[in-house]
Amino acid sequence: MNDSISTFTLAPGFRAAATACGLKPSGNLDLALIAAEGPCSAAGVFTTNRVKAAPVIYDQQILAKNASGIRAVITNAGNANACTGPRGMADARRMAELAAYGLRCQPDDVLVLSTGVIGRHLDMDKVAQGLAAVTSTAAAQHGAPIAARAIMTTDTRPKVARAVAQIGGQPVTIAGMCKGSGMIHPNMATMLAIVTTDAAVAPELLQAALRQAAGRSFNCVSVDGDMSTNDTLLLLASGASGVEISAEGARDAQPATAFEQFVEALTGVCVDLAKQVARDGEGATRLIEIRVGGAADEAQAHQVADSIARSPLFKCAVHGGDPNWGRVLCAAGYSGAEIDAERLSLSFGHPGGAQVAVVAAGLPLAYAEPAAAALLREDPVYVNLDLGLGAAAATVWTCDFSKEYVEINAHYTT
Amino acid sequence: MNDSISTFTLAPGFRAAATACGLKPSGNLDLALIAAEGPCSAAGVFTTNRVKAAPVIYDQQILAKNASGIRAVITNAGNANACTGPRGMADARRMAELAAYGLRCQPDDVLVLSTGVIGRHLDMDKVAQGLAAVTSTAAAQHGAPIAARAIMTTDTRPKVARAVAQIGGQPVTIAGMCKGSGMIHPNMATMLAIVTTDAAVAPELLQAALRQAAGRSFNCVSVDGDMSTNDTLLLLASGASGVEISAEGARDAQPATAFEQFVEALTGVCVDLAKQVARDGEGATRLIEIRVGGAADEAQAHQVADSIARSPLFKCAVHGGDPNWGRVLCAAGYSGAEIDAERLSLSFGHPGGAQVAVVAAGLPLAYAEPAAAALLREDPVYVNLDLGLGAAAATVWTCDFSKEYVEINAHYTT
Repeated sequence: MNDSISTFTLAPGFRAAATACGLKPSGNLDLALIAAEGPCSAAGVFTTNRVKAAPVIYDQQILAKNASGIRAVITNAGNANACTGPRGMADARRMAELAAYGLRCQPDDVLVLSTGVIGRHLDMDKVAQGLAAVTSTAAAQHGAPIAARAIMTTDTRPKVARAVAQIGGQPVTIAGMCKGSGMIHPNMATMLAIVTTDAAVAPELLQAALRQAAGRSFNCVSVDGDMSTNDTLLLLASGASGVEISAEGARDAQPATAFEQFVEALTGVCVDLAKQVARDGEGATRLIEIRVGGAADEAQAHQVADSIARSPLFKCAVHGGDPNWGRVLCAAGYSGAEIDAERLSLSFGHPGGAQVAVVAAGLPLAYAEPAAAALLREDPVYVNLDLGLGAAAATVWTCDFSKEYVEINAHYTT
Repeated sequence: MNDSISTFTLAPGFRAAATACGLKPSGNLDLALIAAEGPCSAAGVFTTNRVKAAPVIYDQQILAKNASGIRAVITNAGNANACTGPRGMADARRMAELAAYGLRCQPDDVLVLSTGVIGRHLDMDKVAQGLAAVTSTAAAQHGAPIAARAIMTTDTRPKVARAVAQIGGQPVTIAGMCKGSGMIHPNMATMLAIVTTDAAVAPELLQAALRQAAGRSFNCVSVDGDMSTNDTLLLLASGASGVEISAEGARDAQPATAFEQFVEALTGVCVDLAKQVARDGEGATRLIEIRVGGAADEAQAHQVADSIARSPLFKCAVHGGDPNWGRVLCAAGYSGAEIDAERLSLSFGHPGGAQVAVVAAGLPLAYAEPAAAALLREDPVYVNLDLGLGAAAATVWTCDFSKEYVEINAHYTT
């Protein structure tokens, strides 16, 4: 599903471009444009942090009034435009105005994303020059790879994913880019994702699809520090495929509806992107996939999986290749979920492959230490916990925890 | 308030002893006895982890039926007796029986604490020998310092605190010991505290006092990984002072009641112990005191303070001496509390001393970087966040986050 970066293209109906306008001290690409050939339906999922960056507030306002007519997304890296007060809001609006001028559309047709340092005002001279350049460039399909680079901050690589689904026998493309690391860096903790599709979907339905997909992907990536001030996930639908996704309800035992098929394909792309985020962090050496099953409901499964994924002790143990089941049970036990210690079962290893069962009925089993340790050294590491309370399940992704993480984030001044 | 360890004594009416019975591979002291000269009122606060060690379940049962007649607390280190099933429960009971035999009291008069490795059964031969030794020793007042050492696992030093309060013009002593580190270690994450007093307090009132004190002390220490399977706080009252603490309600503008004075003194001892826990961890170089004020209620203040204290990014920043206000605001923003970003004010430095204000009304101030950085290098580091929503406040303690932490906990196998 994941194209190599250099050949990556957005869905039909979209083009991209990028430039370097000097926001990043490195001089690297820092301003990305994704533009649609016509008005698109758009949906967005935003950070729940009570401290919201100006572009987050701005985009929520735009989607509330123009979710059917979005024509572009502008992203700058190097400055989060957060904790910038009224001037920050004005700067976000000005970015939309400048982009609209260059694209010959209306300011309200433009969404704005920012990522980078908190608490500093945007250098609007640089931004204006960059927007003039990026909107005048013949933004094209082949511009997507450099756009994916321009939105990066501390990512070690650009992150893209693309899939073509058959819906009602017709091809529908879903393609997106994101940025964000499993480990959060000084003031650059943001996860941004822009996903495009050539399906034709009304805004309300698009929002519903995005929420479902986010709930099983980006919301299942455990990052230290939860949501940043800027986290945003956008989905734009051009309709260029001519395939209409309408609001048919699900009917058990019938073939999946077009909407369900669309949500499944969208979720697949979002999961692909989310796993790339989870895997990418300074010092991270392994992706960890934590599956919790046998839960009373999905929320409980997620709560337990998330607790394990957030445990520094657990993440350190994985780093050291230590199959430390005690830490997994302890993290499950303080998750807040009403679990029964005597019903817990735990194994390591991919469910479809070699597994080692280490706990049953809440008590440790005699298991082969070398086999278990070997599974803890693979990538990904698979952790499977069954709660024995029901049939619901959830998966959370994270990465292991190393000394490099502390080194980077202690921001040593000497 | 904090006596040097060597001269530390429990409250009048209590004596202590300790021995090494071979549970710790090092051969160090690992079995402690605190014995009362007569039956005591007792109260306990236990871990909320859904996975509870055998001694936790056992003590809860004992206190439910014999909270007026407790005569001893036995603590073993080196084995948590957790995830040990029915055999673990039987072993906890057997420890009480063996101790009762040596002390010539009833098994139901004895509370049991364990800390150490999870998932291994106790070596009851060693425990039995140790209990015979420690109950036959002339347990004495001067045994308290070695008892404080015997309950240690990965603590770098024994932790004790003692205070004499004047209640109704008469002296009441409160003295306790605890173990636990601000950083949690492989399978030895437990916080245990045994506090003694010579006040005469009925069990229900003692429980109320302990809950209040715990809520402002041990529950305000942020440790990575929340509560272990074994966390326990016990309070025993001998009555040896002759000072009765009865249930008089508080009357505004009147002198504090005896109960209020007792709770205040108990809280002071518990805070002293809790700060020692927060400060003690591998690689920790500084205690961090996070005060959140201006909250709608104390629970909100605590929720925000706890979120900041748990942020690895924040703890790393402190380690590096970086006055990173953005991370503080971000952690407050995802705490779950309904805060208003535009009402936040933040400063560093002890409220009674030199302070540097860095944020007002949610926006950064121009501040002297060297002065702020200097405050981040002191011990303790003081962080003061005002939410601007009310008048309630709470304080949480934690320590900074270093490479050594990861090194210890990755349990490198090579």
